[in-house]
Amino acid sequence: MPEPFHVGLLGHGTVGGAFATLLAERAGAVEAETGRRPELSGILTRSRGDFEDILERSDLIVELMGGIEPAREHVLRALEAGRHVVTANKQLLSQHGEEIFDAARRGAVQLRFEGAVAGVVPAIRVMGESLAGAHIERVHGIVNGTTNYILTQMTATGATYDAALAEAQEMGYAEADPTEDVTGKDAAAKMAILARLAFNAAVRLDQVSYEGIERITPDDIGYAKDLGLSLKLVGSAQRIDGAVAVHVYPAFLYADHPLASVNGAFNAVTIESPAITEITLSGPGAGGVQTASAVLGDVVSAMIPPPSLPAPAVEQRIVTDVEFSFYLHLEVADRPGVLAQVAEILGMQGVSIRSVVQKGLGPEARLVMVMHPVLESKFRAAVELISRLDFVREPPRVIRVIEETF
Amino acid sequence: MPEPFHVGLLGHGTVGGAFATLLAERAGAVEAETGRRPELSGILTRSRGDFEDILERSDLIVELMGGIEPAREHVLRALEAGRHVVTANKQLLSQHGEEIFDAARRGAVQLRFEGAVAGVVPAIRVMGESLAGAHIERVHGIVNGTTNYILTQMTATGATYDAALAEAQEMGYAEADPTEDVTGKDAAAKMAILARLAFNAAVRLDQVSYEGIERITPDDIGYAKDLGLSLKLVGSAQRIDGAVAVHVYPAFLYADHPLASVNGAFNAVTIESPAITEITLSGPGAGGVQTASAVLGDVVSAMIPPPSLPAPAVEQRIVTDVEFSFYLHLEVADRPGVLAQVAEILGMQGVSIRSVVQKGLGPEARLVMVMHPVLESKFRAAVELISRLDFVREPPRVIRVIEETF
Repeated sequence: MPEPFHVGLLGHGTVGGAFATLLAERAGAVEAETGRRPELSGILTRSRGDFEDILERSDLIVELMGGIEPAREHVLRALEAGRHVVTANKQLLSQHGEEIFDAARRGAVQLRFEGAVAGVVPAIRVMGESLAGAHIERVHGIVNGTTNYILTQMTATGATYDAALAEAQEMGYAEADPTEDVTGKDAAAKMAILARLAFNAAVRLDQVSYEGIERITPDDIGYAKDLGLSLKLVGSAQRIDGAVAVHVYPAFLYADHPLASVNGAFNAVTIESPAITEITLSGPGAGGVQTASAVLGDVVSAMIPPPSLPAPAVEQRIVTDVEFSFYLHLEVADRPGVLAQVAEILGMQGVSIRSVVQKGLGPEARLVMVMHPVLESKFRAAVELISRLDFVREPPRVIRVIEETF
Repeated sequence: MPEPFHVGLLGHGTVGGAFATLLAERAGAVEAETGRRPELSGILTRSRGDFEDILERSDLIVELMGGIEPAREHVLRALEAGRHVVTANKQLLSQHGEEIFDAARRGAVQLRFEGAVAGVVPAIRVMGESLAGAHIERVHGIVNGTTNYILTQMTATGATYDAALAEAQEMGYAEADPTEDVTGKDAAAKMAILARLAFNAAVRLDQVSYEGIERITPDDIGYAKDLGLSLKLVGSAQRIDGAVAVHVYPAFLYADHPLASVNGAFNAVTIESPAITEITLSGPGAGGVQTASAVLGDVVSAMIPPPSLPAPAVEQRIVTDVEFSFYLHLEVADRPGVLAQVAEILGMQGVSIRSVVQKGLGPEARLVMVMHPVLESKFRAAVELISRLDFVREPPRVIRVIEETF
């Protein structure tokens, strides 16, 4: 049996705790994929653990302490000692990125940091790998979930900034001290990292010009709605005449912009390049579990370079008869008892009606129904019976319906 | 100087030609990133070139012939000969995937195929790498640009299927023989590949149950609009009670579903997993240049395993004063000449007005203006002058405006 892959964990706050749990849950699946079982070799917290001791016993260090020191010192030491490092520390990378990248290069080890930028949205990997051959012109991002949640609430309810912030704090989407988020500083750090990857330019946090959302009024949002615009805190990184510019600011987006429909605590990044037009990636912003999931993806990648090939397939049953919601469109004779007969047949097959609309009169009469989820074979059997009823004038029309599940 | 990285190209149709052009254009950038310059070692077409000769002189084979034979034979031979392979061949992978994956595993080489699924949308990499540690429950995709274009047109104009198809053919979004696209078969092949990666299950094309869009009527789309739904050709791959189910079908999507707003020839994939909730990736569907860009990303990845570290930074100027569109909100006294004076100051600073609305009366009077793009410093200078005018009652409010550029 191969040795376990030893993971040393620095930091055990929200993300660190979620990572430790996820690693334990997924260890078997990761072993199946990589051939080695990942195991925690030790956890360093403010009060517990010895860094050098954990380092000694680790193949890879996961840094989730946040802040600059001692995170910086530990990351540099780990890289110099030839250990792979995975970090979600945006402050560290946006202020000391070059020093850390250099150390990783000298140590010839992997340094991965997907969790530092946009929660589970894989912007780092896509820019650094999928688009390695593309010339990126511009990156637009909604990279702070707290401010997007606040702006979404202000738009939906007409609330003031203060009221929306208070609600976000109550819901756990904003911290007690929301300064880093609402001033745009958190987004600025993330945009500096994205710019570093997009343009290969060493952009530091202090070179990003940023504004926050504290002065946005319901009035601004009202006008935006009138104009068909949505207001977002946008990060932008772009090439301009051979130079690079990185900003964070509240902006109105036209409705057809891919970021315009990103709502709530979601994050999204749009990457523009002549060859690809644009790619948009979206998903939940940083939460403990989401960031932990991005971190685990990085750990798995470090375990199996090059990670291009799917694992050998596992024997699994392939089925086709599954549950769907269905829309059913019937052209019927306009007479009493029609709906009752249709409903009875559906009921006998265990199909439950979610909504029904009767439309038209006389030769135009039709029933438009949406069902609750049901096994396709049962629904088709019911439709087959219904199609034989004498008042059904045309073959029934069936289309599936998909709901947002989250 | 290190040896060039020799790329053998099989196929020189739309995608092959675009790839050859893109490779030449980006060779310098790729060399800066990887340390080796990629160069075409040969091109095999139906009438030109000798496969064994090209193979002999290549580090990596790019297969863009399409179809099963001789693509299958060439890919297997290249993998057995220890060459990396990049392919965009969905037919091949969805019908002979396991044979090809096994050959790559035996040859201990990379096999990459991002271009096979959703144009430039990096679904393969994100599922195989970012989400390597996640338990994927379901994948929903709009993976065929032709059908999404047709359905978008039917929705926008009320056109019949036949008319929308004819228009798509005219615009180059549909082929003269559109059968593979409109029957859902093309999407089915792509969903089989996504299911293989999502669930580690060997799903073949003939195990995917698919329906197309040929029988969709303007009537269906009309009802959907009434109900707030949009109609899309959806691919779904999901785990069900320990089994795997893969379908392609036209479906109604509720408006808050992340795929509901994917319009035109765009593709998108939503990946659901308990730990991440969901990630959505979207971008232009398969066009020659887009697919070529995905292929080049795969080639670069094969050149630099493990590809986790950004290249050393290149010295670049960082600027902050750049052009923006601005929204300007002025609370003004309600008297003649106000707009003229504001417009004059803007004009003197080179700021051009795109739209202006005068709102309210008396003490509620305000001007709401949107400008054409202008250097921020010029606009701020104008606003500073405007703020000193005696009829301006409150500090001017300024917010940037972002348009969709494509």
